[in-house]
Amino acid sequence: RVNADRLWDSLMEMAKIGATEKGGVCRLALTDLDKQARDLFVKWCKEAGCTVKIDKMGNVFARRPGKDDSLAPVMTGSHIDSQPTGGKFDGVYGVLAGLEVIRTLNDFNYETNRPVEVAIWTNEEGSRFAPAMVASGVFAGVFDLDYGLSRADVDGKTMGEELKRIGYDGPEEVGGRKIHAFFETHIEQGPILEHEKKTIGVVQGAQGQRWFEVVMTGQEAHAGPTPMKVRKDAMVGAAHVISAVNRIGHENQPFACATVGMVQCSPNSRNTIPGKVFFTIDLRHPEDKILSKMAAEAKAAAEEAAKKNGLELDFKEIWYSPPVKFDADCVAAVKQGAEQLGFDSMPIISGAGHDACYMNRVAPTAMVFIPCEDGISHNEIENATKSDCAAGVDVLLRAMVERANA
Amino acid sequence: RVNADRLWDSLMEMAKIGATEKGGVCRLALTDLDKQARDLFVKWCKEAGCTVKIDKMGNVFARRPGKDDSLAPVMTGSHIDSQPTGGKFDGVYGVLAGLEVIRTLNDFNYETNRPVEVAIWTNEEGSRFAPAMVASGVFAGVFDLDYGLSRADVDGKTMGEELKRIGYDGPEEVGGRKIHAFFETHIEQGPILEHEKKTIGVVQGAQGQRWFEVVMTGQEAHAGPTPMKVRKDAMVGAAHVISAVNRIGHENQPFACATVGMVQCSPNSRNTIPGKVFFTIDLRHPEDKILSKMAAEAKAAAEEAAKKNGLELDFKEIWYSPPVKFDADCVAAVKQGAEQLGFDSMPIISGAGHDACYMNRVAPTAMVFIPCEDGISHNEIENATKSDCAAGVDVLLRAMVERANA
Ligand SMILES: NC(=O)NCCC(=O)O
Ligand SMILES: NC(=O)NCCC(=O)O
Repeated sequence: RVNADRLWDSLMEMAKIGATEKGGVCRLALTDLDKQARDLFVKWCKEAGCTVKIDKMGNVFARRPGKDDSLAPVMTGSHIDSQPTGGKFDGVYGVLAGLEVIRTLNDFNYETNRPVEVAIWTNEEGSRFAPAMVASGVFAGVFDLDYGLSRADVDGKTMGEELKRIGYDGPEEVGGRKIHAFFETHIEQGPILEHEKKTIGVVQGAQGQRWFEVVMTGQEAHAGPTPMKVRKDAMVGAAHVISAVNRIGHENQPFACATVGMVQCSPNSRNTIPGKVFFTIDLRHPEDKILSKMAAEAKAAAEEAAKKNGLELDFKEIWYSPPVKFDADCVAAVKQGAEQLGFDSMPIISGAGHDACYMNRVAPTAMVFIPCEDGISHNEIENATKSDCAAGVDVLLRAMVERANA
Repeated sequence: RVNADRLWDSLMEMAKIGATEKGGVCRLALTDLDKQARDLFVKWCKEAGCTVKIDKMGNVFARRPGKDDSLAPVMTGSHIDSQPTGGKFDGVYGVLAGLEVIRTLNDFNYETNRPVEVAIWTNEEGSRFAPAMVASGVFAGVFDLDYGLSRADVDGKTMGEELKRIGYDGPEEVGGRKIHAFFETHIEQGPILEHEKKTIGVVQGAQGQRWFEVVMTGQEAHAGPTPMKVRKDAMVGAAHVISAVNRIGHENQPFACATVGMVQCSPNSRNTIPGKVFFTIDLRHPEDKILSKMAAEAKAAAEEAAKKNGLELDFKEIWYSPPVKFDADCVAAVKQGAEQLGFDSMPIISGAGHDACYMNRVAPTAMVFIPCEDGISHNEIENATKSDCAAGVDVLLRAMVERANA
């Protein structure tokens, strides 16, 4: 069994980096805080006897050698960037789970056949730089390196510039090497495990998602003397679409999710009719066919809103992450680990995207979920128990050792 | 007649201060650019032989002595702050109109009985600091000085701090002195004069307005694994209200205007359900009874949206500017001026609030409107012709001289 206290202490130590007043974490990708957290992880890994390599996307790989170090490694990992008002567990738990696996193997002087690696994937959240899972995507060959390095934040700063600035523009090529198996441990970020009173979610795959950027352009004019009937109010158009997106989510149950998370109104002045609104749409469904239908419905709503309000419309899909089905053997290794340890488990589909979704394209992959309080994530109050955190790593350890020796 | 070229040249010189790429002006209240524009005006006024005084709200008064300098002055003026994407005429035209009156009186060595004053009123737009017309409001006793100085922008900087910073926290008491008459010249900011092919609008008064600040608070959660039916999406609630406000505007025709100009979505991350949205509502109508009814309808819509989406609601009226009826004698002086000069004119109600609306409480007041292109204002493309600009000042000059000698 892993050391629950050591794992928890490391989580709480990391949570100080970017800690918010409400008990959460704001550690946006490639900020100084991201660098601090990376530095601490690298220090801990070196103390645990690992070698550390960094690739051109800033992905970090800490390696514990195997008996036969020429074999492809068994890898685990997740991310340490957070949402602007994120929690203490999302991502960083999966990274420190990997470190705890290594520390436990060290405790028992246990040698695996294959090397074991723990990865930090850069910018998983997709919040500062869209889309999500960019750097694992480059690793998996979904995106090319130029695309990855050129992703820009709202101020126009690119990932390439920011990697350089914080000193994490490493020398290694991104991907192109064999990984024997990949596992990712994560809080569920939804309410199912808690509701079903299960400690372990044996993740079968993830739902698909489509992200859009929408710009509606009307005409700025004075909120007082401009008659209602001549207005081209971009915010009125956007409001129509926001309501429609929500309705599309409700109408495509079960499973559908539909969210407008980001809205930028211009010029954003109380007495000026908004001339331009930028907003994002996030659509999700485990079935590709329904996901496509939802996208068509959202587009139709935007076209209707544009026409009705005399607006120009720019409706652009910026990301498509298809539904994912994880590797049967890796999933079985997770299930078996939970059973051997006596944890109540259940199969589950991830509602969120994870680096594991892209790693699944280049390595046999599976995930371990643990419950989080009230199913809340992407929120400063995000919470998980020490014993569930340890249980997830116990399962991870079993699954990794099984794969590393098989 | 006034000097049309000189007036135009001064307008274009001022328009350089804060000039935007699209030909407009961004000169927010109490920024360095506002200071630059003030400094230039003060310089021009001194060159025209005026004495200049500044009060504690940063209002600037340039004075040309009268034959009997102990008499209460006839005053004109407007503002030189702009919207974030404002035009070259809104406000500053009324200030430079006053300067052109003084320059013209100087050209003819004409002595008025009463002194003539030209005012810059601080922060008329209400865009950086809400509400609008704050400093003329303090002058007129509508707001007290503490209220005026404590208005804060989105970064928490107060008008008091910013006045000090730019050196316009003057020594004079705000208001409390007799003004014999006040006139304000302004572009119409709406389409009526252009549509009716009139050069001069004889402004009878202004419609009433009510401004609100609304905060809807739900719960941040992950856009992927959080089922639609448990969400508390503040942006969905806000969208409902934005649509309702627009509908309220359309349903209360003729005359009603209803606008949501400012929306701030938090945490504004693509894959996080918005936990909090702040937005503003601007409602206008010339009839107080209908304006109140619109306000009640907007509040009801917000309550309904909050209930439906499980949100907390904070719905606050931050400003009420009742409908205004200008002084009959001053209005007659404007009408007479237009007639004497042979300009086509018509009575008109202002859709916008103006410093004249507050001055009307402490001095007999009227306004002169000129057309603007396509009725567009609060937009960088805002435009007016040189001859219309001169016509407005010709009328202003007549009206002011008539009052100053009467
Ligand atoms: N796990 C997680 O929060 N991933 C971010 C990408 C997504 O929105 O699904
Ligand atoms: N004239 C003008 O733009 N005033 C700003 C106050 C208002 O919105 O009516």
